[in-house]
Amino acid sequence: MRTALIPLALLAAAPLAAEDKPAAAPTPVEIVAAAPKADWAPITASDLMVMDLAADAKGRPRRVVIQLLPPPFSQGWVGNIRKLVAARFWDGTSINRVQDNYVVQWGDAEAEDAKKAKKLPDGLAAVPESEYAAPFAPPMFKFRYTAWGKRDALVARGLVVVPIEVEPESRSYADAYSVNVGFASGFPVGMSYSQRQGYVDPLSDKGFNQPDAVWPVHCYGMVGVGRDMPPNTGSGAELYTVIGHAPRQLDRNIALVGRVIEGIEHMSSLPRGHGPLGFYDLAQGDERVPILSVRMGSEVTDLPTYEYLDTEKPSFARYADARASRRDPFYIRPAGGADICNIPVPVRQVK
Amino acid sequence: MRTALIPLALLAAAPLAAEDKPAAAPTPVEIVAAAPKADWAPITASDLMVMDLAADAKGRPRRVVIQLLPPPFSQGWVGNIRKLVAARFWDGTSINRVQDNYVVQWGDAEAEDAKKAKKLPDGLAAVPESEYAAPFAPPMFKFRYTAWGKRDALVARGLVVVPIEVEPESRSYADAYSVNVGFASGFPVGMSYSQRQGYVDPLSDKGFNQPDAVWPVHCYGMVGVGRDMPPNTGSGAELYTVIGHAPRQLDRNIALVGRVIEGIEHMSSLPRGHGPLGFYDLAQGDERVPILSVRMGSEVTDLPTYEYLDTEKPSFARYADARASRRDPFYIRPAGGADICNIPVPVRQVK
Repeated sequence: MRTALIPLALLAAAPLAAEDKPAAAPTPVEIVAAAPKADWAPITASDLMVMDLAADAKGRPRRVVIQLLPPPFSQGWVGNIRKLVAARFWDGTSINRVQDNYVVQWGDAEAEDAKKAKKLPDGLAAVPESEYAAPFAPPMFKFRYTAWGKRDALVARGLVVVPIEVEPESRSYADAYSVNVGFASGFPVGMSYSQRQGYVDPLSDKGFNQPDAVWPVHCYGMVGVGRDMPPNTGSGAELYTVIGHAPRQLDRNIALVGRVIEGIEHMSSLPRGHGPLGFYDLAQGDERVPILSVRMGSEVTDLPTYEYLDTEKPSFARYADARASRRDPFYIRPAGGADICNIPVPVRQVK
Repeated sequence: MRTALIPLALLAAAPLAAEDKPAAAPTPVEIVAAAPKADWAPITASDLMVMDLAADAKGRPRRVVIQLLPPPFSQGWVGNIRKLVAARFWDGTSINRVQDNYVVQWGDAEAEDAKKAKKLPDGLAAVPESEYAAPFAPPMFKFRYTAWGKRDALVARGLVVVPIEVEPESRSYADAYSVNVGFASGFPVGMSYSQRQGYVDPLSDKGFNQPDAVWPVHCYGMVGVGRDMPPNTGSGAELYTVIGHAPRQLDRNIALVGRVIEGIEHMSSLPRGHGPLGFYDLAQGDERVPILSVRMGSEVTDLPTYEYLDTEKPSFARYADARASRRDPFYIRPAGGADICNIPVPVRQVK
């Protein structure tokens, strides 16, 4: 048999259950495949940014599709990005930096040189640092996990010791970067609670207070805004995407504006730059990757329609739970918890 | 000014402090650069595996250097790997799979076909699943972080609410996959505590019991053993390395045997495969990447000497603390905690 690593189980259909054998637990992929249409939410074409890179060495087109963050996140920068697209600012610019296990960054390679730099469109907002997080917006957010610290608290009280047998009450979504994590409108977010609001025992699901600040977090494929030293927050003209382990230390230190929903492999597989920080160094034989055009999805006639698995719906909850506790046949020991960035929100083209 | 993202601050020397201004906090890179020689530990050449891939399209050599795990981790598989190298098993095999944000996998592409498969050397061990974790080995392990659940516990008791002002006692190394995390002999590990040993309040540093099991975890660049369905654990003939967000759900479900310490960009930047699970599909124009040879470091005459920042030494503690709470000028809000996989152990060539 071919040694296959866990993912064969990901794609394979669940084996038919013999009568004397319980059906195998579904994989996360199987749960997503079985999700009813009602559990998917459409992505509006006008919230998509479509970046066409020059064709690769074999002549294959390279298209990257980015979904911009919805309100109330990062609105100042997202507004700037819409203006930059309208001005065709990125047409003819390039990918200038590829740093392994970190980011791919693109924009005007001559931005530093006042004589050669492309002119920015008028009317870009200077967005304050306070917009790195948003006030809590009840209509758009529901907890998927009230489990912050739950296992930890249980362990501390001696109620759970070794979570090998994973029961729902001992699942962990502990996070090193924020008190709680969850999903808002299909995006991974961190959140905080103010002293004024107090704090309710995490062992009780009820009475768990609402957070007073919510912010998107730096998972794989998230897109953010390059900036200079603070209090500069960047205009949005220089963007990056995460191509490695989530650099969560950047959360609330730099603006996020969206995520790549298709074509990230055209960026993550680019040659790494030989200059400092992975910037392409032409003197060392690096070649920048030309950006042919960037358009809003509503301007692109051949763009498919996309939808994401609604993070408020039951299928998503089942999917996230399966990501946290793999019980399909490949696994021998479910983890009993998951990193927020290991629960990527499924996105698909509408057939 | 060039919009630069955080990393400019990483490489730049700390600005000279004016007399009326405190010196800027050092970056993690600056802390590593300043570490005394005594804080570095050598890596024995006989613990290195050197994989030479075919040159890239520009004729540049591609060498990948892997450090094998020390005892007591994964010894059965590491022993097999030494036998496979001695038998030159991988010479002439290839990289067969590149799945975005997951793994690169290599070995005999014909392993599934009994007629074409390369013969495995005699004497490979069938390693039991119990070896996915090791009993606690006091001489080789020290806690760097006793902080498991510390912030969480403080929050639960109402002692800390919003960790904006990060004090040592509110730092978080909370982990979604294991009760505690740390470093053993330079490798990131998870650990568990048995009921028999009981549990001591995490608010107290003293009396924190020793774990009864320790295991390496799936961070970026870690190398593991492809396997079939359990109870198969793999021989070691098919290996993979992590090239995306740490797939920690694999911890204790699959064997880890080491990590890439140099040249991972030669694997992470490869074209993604178009077949299922990222396997290269020749019919779709994919090309496998030839492996010219795999040797132990002790057999390679032109190999530099490597050393890692000793995880038992003060410089590592300072480095890890700076990774968790960035106070250098680029940052406006230190996180107050870090994911174990966001504290990569520094490795360098000895000059």
